[in-house]
Amino acid sequence: MTTTTATLDAYPTRTQGGEFLARSHPTVWGSGTDGPFDDVALKAHARRGYTILPDFISADEVSEFNAELHRLSTDRSLLGDERIITEKVSGEVRSIFQVEQLSARIDALTRDPRLLDRARQLLGSEVYLHQTRINYMPGFKGTGFYWHSDFETWHAEDGLPAPRAVSCSIALTRNYPFNGGLMVMPGSHEVFVPGVGETPADNHASSLQEQTVGVPSEASIAALAERCGIDQFTGPAGSALWFDSNIMHASANNITPYPRSNIFLVFNSVENAPQQPFAAAAPRPNHIANRDVTPLS
Amino acid sequence: MTTTTATLDAYPTRTQGGEFLARSHPTVWGSGTDGPFDDVALKAHARRGYTILPDFISADEVSEFNAELHRLSTDRSLLGDERIITEKVSGEVRSIFQVEQLSARIDALTRDPRLLDRARQLLGSEVYLHQTRINYMPGFKGTGFYWHSDFETWHAEDGLPAPRAVSCSIALTRNYPFNGGLMVMPGSHEVFVPGVGETPADNHASSLQEQTVGVPSEASIAALAERCGIDQFTGPAGSALWFDSNIMHASANNITPYPRSNIFLVFNSVENAPQQPFAAAAPRPNHIANRDVTPLS
Repeated sequence: MTTTTATLDAYPTRTQGGEFLARSHPTVWGSGTDGPFDDVALKAHARRGYTILPDFISADEVSEFNAELHRLSTDRSLLGDERIITEKVSGEVRSIFQVEQLSARIDALTRDPRLLDRARQLLGSEVYLHQTRINYMPGFKGTGFYWHSDFETWHAEDGLPAPRAVSCSIALTRNYPFNGGLMVMPGSHEVFVPGVGETPADNHASSLQEQTVGVPSEASIAALAERCGIDQFTGPAGSALWFDSNIMHASANNITPYPRSNIFLVFNSVENAPQQPFAAAAPRPNHIANRDVTPLS
Repeated sequence: MTTTTATLDAYPTRTQGGEFLARSHPTVWGSGTDGPFDDVALKAHARRGYTILPDFISADEVSEFNAELHRLSTDRSLLGDERIITEKVSGEVRSIFQVEQLSARIDALTRDPRLLDRARQLLGSEVYLHQTRINYMPGFKGTGFYWHSDFETWHAEDGLPAPRAVSCSIALTRNYPFNGGLMVMPGSHEVFVPGVGETPADNHASSLQEQTVGVPSEASIAALAERCGIDQFTGPAGSALWFDSNIMHASANNITPYPRSNIFLVFNSVENAPQQPFAAAAPRPNHIANRDVTPLS
């Protein structure tokens, strides 16, 4: 009999596809006495895998953050910076990663009790930032993201052992039903859908523009939609969407004149620190998948 | 002093762009005593430029027409037929034009009083079919249509003098807000937006897959959306959308698993018979733009 310290992989992926796996970890780790969500809200979050909070930040804050986005995306000293992701076709700035290091205002937001207390409550522990970014989807030609679970990538390529991470997307523009806002499949976070195909080296360099590896099969997406349906994140600027790392989601192209911007912060439990990637040769760079698990405070 | 029988062009287009023009023709030509729409409904239609009628056809009829669509799109004797338009990428059947000639069931529908009486009432005269088709937008990869006014094309390329035509789109699948359903700008039918660019020969051969000539500028679309806003045609299978030939509309890509199909019938007033194209060298083929103005009965 041998003993081993290697972690058992509860979520094998990047294989030939394969069956859905039942999630073996909770979605909500804390209780109603641990933070701003009451027990009813936590139960709903555990069932749906997401929670929308309108008026999460004020109109003044929305203006400030949009100004930060404008400042950063026109900062010529950041041209060519690996943290800046541009649109495949137009070259416009689409995302700025590790944005808390570029903006003191956003750094403060990541520590704001409105966020930090909720992240700690949902994950039942101290938390740190696994990934942050500010996104801009232009009008007319904004390209969306195909269906995926974030956790599938974070597990395969970044080594997060469990889906004990939660994302907060704060809308800086109105999300209409038709300008490329997030679509989520409620309840799909309870199912792990293995991604199809092996991970090529440096996959992240292209996958942030258009994901082609690790995406679920059409049959998987259709089966999940049949089971869960599709909800949309709509609402005025300042609304927040909290969503589980394993929920199946996508966003459509945006051909309306209305651009869309948001701040996207991923909190991970310090008890879910990244290990070696579960299905990739090497971890992704730190600005995409932070490996410094010092708790936020 | 000379006299001329040439029609004055009230809607010049395919130029260098140019200003919006005010519509010089009515939207609703009949009154509440002429057909199924009452005066309130007609007034609303004139103001918005569109009307949604839920339960326009029955669930049984929806099934029948979907079966017709399936039959026609798998009919190998129609392969290569000019009336069949395929998806640019996948080659799947996307539209079948002049469908009343291929389906007795759809031919009967075009003469059904539910349609014919409304078309006559809106246009204030006898009517004929300018264009008909049955459309299929697949799930996952369905490509949409960019913003345009149908009348701009029908005027420029088919020679319809005035926007005295109305379209009826009957949903054969549920229109969600997120599976590529029609977006319309309410009130935009009151404005004629000249298309940018000259019409190349045989433009229709590619424009039915992806329109690139005659589309309005981004500035025009943004200004119209600012003025009008955007509404969506959502609802269960069997709903109908009646919309003015000059309303600005578009549909987004469809990455959901839910395909979308509909029957699309364009009624034109017999008093608005096609002339020579106003901005193209030759009229489009008959299966796209019918020049036989024999009234429907």
